[in-house]
Amino acid sequence: MARRTAKKSGKSVRVGLLGLGTVGRGVVEILTRHRALIAERSGVELTVVRALVRSSRQRRGAAGRVPLTRRAADIVAAADVDVVCELLGGLDPSRRLIEQALRAHKPVVTANKAVLARFGPQLFELARRQGADLYFEGAVAGGLPIIRTLREGLAGDRIKSVMGILNGTTNFILGRIEGGHSYEAALAEAQALGFAEADPRLDVGGGDAADKLAILMHLAFGLHVPSRRISTAGVVGLSPEILRDAAALGCRVKLVALARRHEGTGGGIEAHVQPTLVPLSHPLATVGGADNAVAVESEALGLTLYQGAGAGGLPTGTAVVADLIDVARNLAAGLVGRPGPRLDRAARLLDGGRSAGAYYLRLLVSDRPGVLASITRIFAAQGVSVATIRQERGGARGGVPVAITTHPASTAAVARVMARIGKIAALRAAPNLLRMLT
Amino acid sequence: MARRTAKKSGKSVRVGLLGLGTVGRGVVEILTRHRALIAERSGVELTVVRALVRSSRQRRGAAGRVPLTRRAADIVAAADVDVVCELLGGLDPSRRLIEQALRAHKPVVTANKAVLARFGPQLFELARRQGADLYFEGAVAGGLPIIRTLREGLAGDRIKSVMGILNGTTNFILGRIEGGHSYEAALAEAQALGFAEADPRLDVGGGDAADKLAILMHLAFGLHVPSRRISTAGVVGLSPEILRDAAALGCRVKLVALARRHEGTGGGIEAHVQPTLVPLSHPLATVGGADNAVAVESEALGLTLYQGAGAGGLPTGTAVVADLIDVARNLAAGLVGRPGPRLDRAARLLDGGRSAGAYYLRLLVSDRPGVLASITRIFAAQGVSVATIRQERGGARGGVPVAITTHPASTAAVARVMARIGKIAALRAAPNLLRMLT
Repeated sequence: MARRTAKKSGKSVRVGLLGLGTVGRGVVEILTRHRALIAERSGVELTVVRALVRSSRQRRGAAGRVPLTRRAADIVAAADVDVVCELLGGLDPSRRLIEQALRAHKPVVTANKAVLARFGPQLFELARRQGADLYFEGAVAGGLPIIRTLREGLAGDRIKSVMGILNGTTNFILGRIEGGHSYEAALAEAQALGFAEADPRLDVGGGDAADKLAILMHLAFGLHVPSRRISTAGVVGLSPEILRDAAALGCRVKLVALARRHEGTGGGIEAHVQPTLVPLSHPLATVGGADNAVAVESEALGLTLYQGAGAGGLPTGTAVVADLIDVARNLAAGLVGRPGPRLDRAARLLDGGRSAGAYYLRLLVSDRPGVLASITRIFAAQGVSVATIRQERGGARGGVPVAITTHPASTAAVARVMARIGKIAALRAAPNLLRMLT
Repeated sequence: MARRTAKKSGKSVRVGLLGLGTVGRGVVEILTRHRALIAERSGVELTVVRALVRSSRQRRGAAGRVPLTRRAADIVAAADVDVVCELLGGLDPSRRLIEQALRAHKPVVTANKAVLARFGPQLFELARRQGADLYFEGAVAGGLPIIRTLREGLAGDRIKSVMGILNGTTNFILGRIEGGHSYEAALAEAQALGFAEADPRLDVGGGDAADKLAILMHLAFGLHVPSRRISTAGVVGLSPEILRDAAALGCRVKLVALARRHEGTGGGIEAHVQPTLVPLSHPLATVGGADNAVAVESEALGLTLYQGAGAGGLPTGTAVVADLIDVARNLAAGLVGRPGPRLDRAARLLDGGRSAGAYYLRLLVSDRPGVLASITRIFAAQGVSVATIRQERGGARGGVPVAITTHPASTAAVARVMARIGKIAALRAAPNLLRMLT
């Protein structure tokens, strides 16, 4: 139930920005360009009064007229700031500043997936105790209103699964590899275009997608787990050959983040981030470029899909501004909005080995008799049923590429297969293991 | 700005249903099944206290324990009803009952597209004057949260176009015609499956999609026009041959509702509902079955897509329940929510003839020399540039089918072409004209 707070008099709400990078400049641009539209539609006027920056020499574009400060207290503890908007990213000092703002009873809007994936429950609890809003639409899938949809649109429904392409950089890279580029060339292009981080390991290793999945799981299932507990593989080492194999199987490779409820005893929430062969008939298969998409399956509504730009200053800025409007409306009415996502004490992560799926495996082995037989014996010994085996003509590094697909099998058994295959003498390179969406 | 109303004490909010058909039963089922979940997530308890029915012999399934009445006043004027939920559909008595509820200061949740398309501005103005919420997520695209997204998620953005598949019945029918069925057989199947209305003219004639487009235009552009002013064509008369032609052109035929802003002097909002050749690479092309989808293009966010079940008791019920939760939270906080969509006095409908597009035209003409020449002369005389012409071998009814595609041309010029072609003596059947999405 909405709780009362000190009512903000008047209709003008003053925003303090922590950070004036890509998203911060996007927020300022949207608030400046659409000031009248926002006031007319929502009844509130939003003004950016100050922005925290590390260096006043940053390029700021349309945000050039925003007064700057290098002291965080000028934002989180200032009497003339009604709402704090945290756009620094990372854990430190973001977490501390969000806490300081909430302790000062200031509502916070953040686009910080890392801090929510790690400290979400503590921060939402602090916000609840302080009677201040903590909104975070920009933290997942940029401008796609997936947080609002899970919190509000699906508030009366029970969610069965959430599956998505949550990292635009890797989706862009996969598209370029499909076009025949090497992984390295595709990554360099993403960096040149400004998609990838300077240190792109969070993108290509799947950690960024895992952070976002952790937030979606908290919302969808009331389960909070640190994202390092989510089984995560990235796109490093994927080759044009793998993407060609996928095409021959009627699929495209996407870095899919999945969380799915398993009912009953021994049940729980299955969660992983993994390169996945997605059938062309599935809506996620056609998500191109640096787009994001989320498919939600729920009991009453069935399958719904949300797709669009997942990053960038203006798309993510749109999400942040939508939150600022909501928070400002709440402030003006003297109440706090919808509570943060609750924790379901009964929800737990499914033991990774207990899930099941079909897999695609690509190996490079020495070209000598009996290798294929020893590989198939390993599968048989673990009870993993092979669907197809294709051995190519001699490939790179003097080895022979072998592509294997399985029927649905226990993830634990497949892991044992991988461990044993990793030890065979004929192996010439680290094997690639991908999920198959069926 | 949120306005104060009498604050509802306690957390239990009592709902009165007008209608207990498919959607009404879905609402009751969701509220019953997910009572605890809703209370926990949103802090409100929703109870259906009474439902208006025409006959107490209706089958009601899970809604069997809801007390019934045949007197509308027992809902719209009852002291023990906090929120009125209008699910009767149609204009009468829905409009009158919505007005009576609002006059009694009761908030209203409706899924009635017809009444909002026709009387939206009056009803929103009445709601504003009475200080009562009027929410309508279920009126467009069933469970897809498109209303919430346009009102809240995109509140800080300026919308350039809204394009969608807004009628599931016709999307289902088009899929069956693609599968080789006749239009008549496909319609009969849709009716047998319960997709189509008993009187399916609103579906297949495009009127249902036009009503929904009118509501989206009101939200997106602040322009309200009665849906009869929206240029509307349906799927009647589309044949497997046309859908095969589309496939050969790398397209699928969808009944597309489009509203797009044209800037500058002489600008305005272009709006039409028309069978359209959608390229396979476009996300709307893959929307199958009875699904709905909406693609929104806005300045900051770019293109976003929303896809899912557009109709049915549980999907539309999910949207209605989401609205009931919002309205109940507002009631409990003693305020009214976001105001209804405003009207932009400067917005106007673009003169239909001033828009432009590429077209596909299919004719059946007598097999005699010179017919093709006379047709191409008509195009040339109106300045419409032909892209391709394909004349088939002798077809049905002794005529020769001719399929023509144009380069982008003025809609007015294409209309003149159609008028002249309609008069040529060699014509053997009414021609089909479809848009091409480029």
